[in-house]
Amino acid sequence: MLAEIVSNETEILMGEIVDTNSTYLASELAGLGIDVQWVSKVGDDPDRLFDVVDRAWRRSDVTLTTGGLGPTSDDLARETIARAMGEEMDVQEDLLQHLKAQFAGRGAPMPSTNIKQATLIPSAKAVPNPMGTAPGWLVEKNGHLIVAMPGPPRELQRMWTHEVAPELKRRNPDVAIVTRTLKTFGISEGGLDEMVAHLFESENPSLGIYSKQDGIHLRAIATAPTEGKALRLLEPMETEIREIAGDAIWGEDGDTPDSQVASLLTETGQTLGLIEAFTGGLLAAGLAAHTGSERFFKGSLVAVDREALDRHGVGPHLIEQHGMASAPVAEAMAEAARQMFGADVGLAVTGTDTDNTSTGTSHIGFAMGEETTSVAGRYPGRGTRMRQRVVTHALLGLRQMLSRGG
Amino acid sequence: MLAEIVSNETEILMGEIVDTNSTYLASELAGLGIDVQWVSKVGDDPDRLFDVVDRAWRRSDVTLTTGGLGPTSDDLARETIARAMGEEMDVQEDLLQHLKAQFAGRGAPMPSTNIKQATLIPSAKAVPNPMGTAPGWLVEKNGHLIVAMPGPPRELQRMWTHEVAPELKRRNPDVAIVTRTLKTFGISEGGLDEMVAHLFESENPSLGIYSKQDGIHLRAIATAPTEGKALRLLEPMETEIREIAGDAIWGEDGDTPDSQVASLLTETGQTLGLIEAFTGGLLAAGLAAHTGSERFFKGSLVAVDREALDRHGVGPHLIEQHGMASAPVAEAMAEAARQMFGADVGLAVTGTDTDNTSTGTSHIGFAMGEETTSVAGRYPGRGTRMRQRVVTHALLGLRQMLSRGG
Repeated sequence: MLAEIVSNETEILMGEIVDTNSTYLASELAGLGIDVQWVSKVGDDPDRLFDVVDRAWRRSDVTLTTGGLGPTSDDLARETIARAMGEEMDVQEDLLQHLKAQFAGRGAPMPSTNIKQATLIPSAKAVPNPMGTAPGWLVEKNGHLIVAMPGPPRELQRMWTHEVAPELKRRNPDVAIVTRTLKTFGISEGGLDEMVAHLFESENPSLGIYSKQDGIHLRAIATAPTEGKALRLLEPMETEIREIAGDAIWGEDGDTPDSQVASLLTETGQTLGLIEAFTGGLLAAGLAAHTGSERFFKGSLVAVDREALDRHGVGPHLIEQHGMASAPVAEAMAEAARQMFGADVGLAVTGTDTDNTSTGTSHIGFAMGEETTSVAGRYPGRGTRMRQRVVTHALLGLRQMLSRGG
Repeated sequence: MLAEIVSNETEILMGEIVDTNSTYLASELAGLGIDVQWVSKVGDDPDRLFDVVDRAWRRSDVTLTTGGLGPTSDDLARETIARAMGEEMDVQEDLLQHLKAQFAGRGAPMPSTNIKQATLIPSAKAVPNPMGTAPGWLVEKNGHLIVAMPGPPRELQRMWTHEVAPELKRRNPDVAIVTRTLKTFGISEGGLDEMVAHLFESENPSLGIYSKQDGIHLRAIATAPTEGKALRLLEPMETEIREIAGDAIWGEDGDTPDSQVASLLTETGQTLGLIEAFTGGLLAAGLAAHTGSERFFKGSLVAVDREALDRHGVGPHLIEQHGMASAPVAEAMAEAARQMFGADVGLAVTGTDTDNTSTGTSHIGFAMGEETTSVAGRYPGRGTRMRQRVVTHALLGLRQMLSRGG
C-alpha cells in the first residue's frame, strides 16, 4: 500500500511554520507498514493545490492531506477534493447543528464563514474532531482513499489515532512491522557507522543510523506477515548490535534521558534537587515536563549571577580559587542543591562558553549517599543547542550513578 | 524566478526528524522575492530521488537540495545530480587536501568513505562549508541552477547566508520584497480575521493571518521594483491594521516576548528574578537563551514542592488560606523572587492543571517599585504547550508593566 502526504498550508511554504504534521504521519505510517513515497507541501493557490492532490489521488493508494480545513477563504482542502472527485459540496444539517453547539459552548456566536466546515460531498464521510471545529473528510472511491485532516497538530494527532489509523489498519492487515531503536551516547556517528557497517547491507531487517540530540541512534526495521515472525527476524541483529556497542547503549525505543532518570528515581523512591549555573533552566524544564515528575523532582535554582549561589553555600572564595567552570565548584553546587531542596540526590551544572572555538565546557556535579563526584565535558556549538547537549550529558551521567546505586 | 526545495533525507520520510531546513529555506527565498512552488521530501532510493531531482531541475529555475552529502552509501545527492546532468564525478585534489586537514585538526584519520565528499562534476563548483566536512555543490547549466546543501541545519544556514543567498540575489536584482508582521495577543484568530477581513482581498500587499504560540500574527507582503516602492505600498495597510487592532499589537517582525522584556530591562538598567511554581523552568530557559540576558536576568527558583517556597518567605499559612493558584500567593512569590535574587523586579508564576477540561489556570505576580500586583489567565491544552502560553502571558504582562514604568 503506497501513501502520500500533502501539506496544504501556505504558512509552511512561506517558511512561517515547521511542518511537524508530515513528520508525525510519516512515522505513524511506517509503523503500520505503509510506505510513504512522497511528501509534498503546497500553498493555497487553488490550481496548484488541485494538481498536487489530483496526482496524489491517482498514483497513491492512500492520500493524507493536512490543513486547509479552517473557515477562511484560503482554506481549500474541501473545495480541492470536491473538484478532484467531480462532486458538489453540500451543507449537512447534523454537522451544522454540532458546529453551532460547539460555538454556543464557548459562549460565542458562530461566524457565518464557519458554515463551510459543515459541508460534505456524496463520497465523503465526516471524521470527528473533538479538539476543534473542523471535522475531517474521508473519501473512498475507485479503490483509492483520501483523508483530509486539520492542520493544528493536537487536532490532527487525535484524529489520526482514534479515527484514521484504525481505518488504515483494517485495510492492511497482513503486514506486521517491528522496529527497534538502540540509543548510544559517547561514540561519534562515523565511529558507530564503521562498527556496524556490515549490518547496513541487510534488507530485512534494515538498519538506519541517525544523529540525534541525545546521541547516535540505530534503528532496525523488520517486516513479516505476523508480529512474531517480524520479531524473530529482528532479534539476531539486535543481539549483534548490543554486543558491538556494549555500554555505549543507554536506552531503546521511546526511552529518553529524562524518562530513564525519572524511572530510576521513582523506583528507588529518591528525590532530586538541581542547581543550574550554565543550563539556565533547561534541565528543570525537561524534567518538569515529564508526567509524574512532581513525585521525585523538588526543584531547581537557576543561578545566573553568583549572589544566589553565595547565599546557598557556594561562596566566592571557592569560585575565585578554582573558577566557576571547575570540578570543586560543580561538586559544592551539587551538595548545595541537595541541601537547599531537602533532596536525596543533588545535581549541578556549571560551565563556560568558549566563543572563539564555538564549543562549551561544562562540569557536572553529583551528590548522593556518601559520594560527591563530577564529570567534565566539551560540546560543539553554542546557545540552546549546545546547552541541550550538556543537559543530555548530565542526565545520562545521573542515570549511570543511579543505576549502579550511587 | 521559480524555486523548488528537495529534502533528500530518509529520516524525514520515516518521520525520524522534523524538516526544519525546508522551512528555513522557504522563508529565506520568500524574502528574496523568489516563489517557492513545491517542496518535496524524498528518501534515499536512487531512482525515486533521481525522478524528483530531474523533474525539479526541468521545471524550476532554482532547485535547492538539502541532505545527502554525508560520507555513507545512503548519501546520494552528488550521485543523483551527476546522473541528472549526465556527467562523471571526479575527486578534486584541492578538496581532498582540505578534507584531510579538517580531520587532522580534530586529531582523527580520515575514513576512506569520506573521499566522495571531495568530488565534483565538470558543471559543479564547490561551495565552502566551514561548519562541516561536506562542501556543497553549485551547478549551473542551460539557464537552470541547482544547489546541493548539507542536512545539518547549522551547516546549511551558514552556507545559505554566506554563499547561496548572495548568488541568488545577484540573479534576481529587480524585485524587492518588504514584509511586515504585526503580532497580537488576547484576540482570537476568528475575531481578528473578521476585524481585518476586507484587507485579505488585497493582492499587493497581500495579507496572511497565522496562529502562533505568542498570539495571532498578521503578515503583509509587498512586492515592487525597489524597496522604497514596496515600502510605500505596504504603509497604508500597516497603518490601517494598527488602527483596527490597537493595543492588542505587542510587537512586529522579529520581536518576541523575551526580546521585548530583554530590551525594556536593559534600557532601564533593571534586573529580574523569578519564582516558577507552575512553568518548571520554561520561563528561565527562554530568558537565559536570549543573548546578553546575563545583564538583567539574575536567576529563577523553580519550586516544584513547597519546602523551597517556605524557606524563601512564601509560607504554608498563606498557601492554605488562599490555595497555591491564587493572587495572594502569586504576589507573595513575586516579592520573594525580588528579595531572593536581589533584583529590581520580581516575577512569579503559580497555577493548576484542570485535567478534566484540559485547561490550565495560572496566577502571575509582579513586584516592582512600590507596586505588587497580579493577573490571572486560563489556557487551553496541557503539558509544555499550555505552559508555554503561560510563559508568553507572563512575559507580555511584564512588558506592559515595564513600558508604563511600573
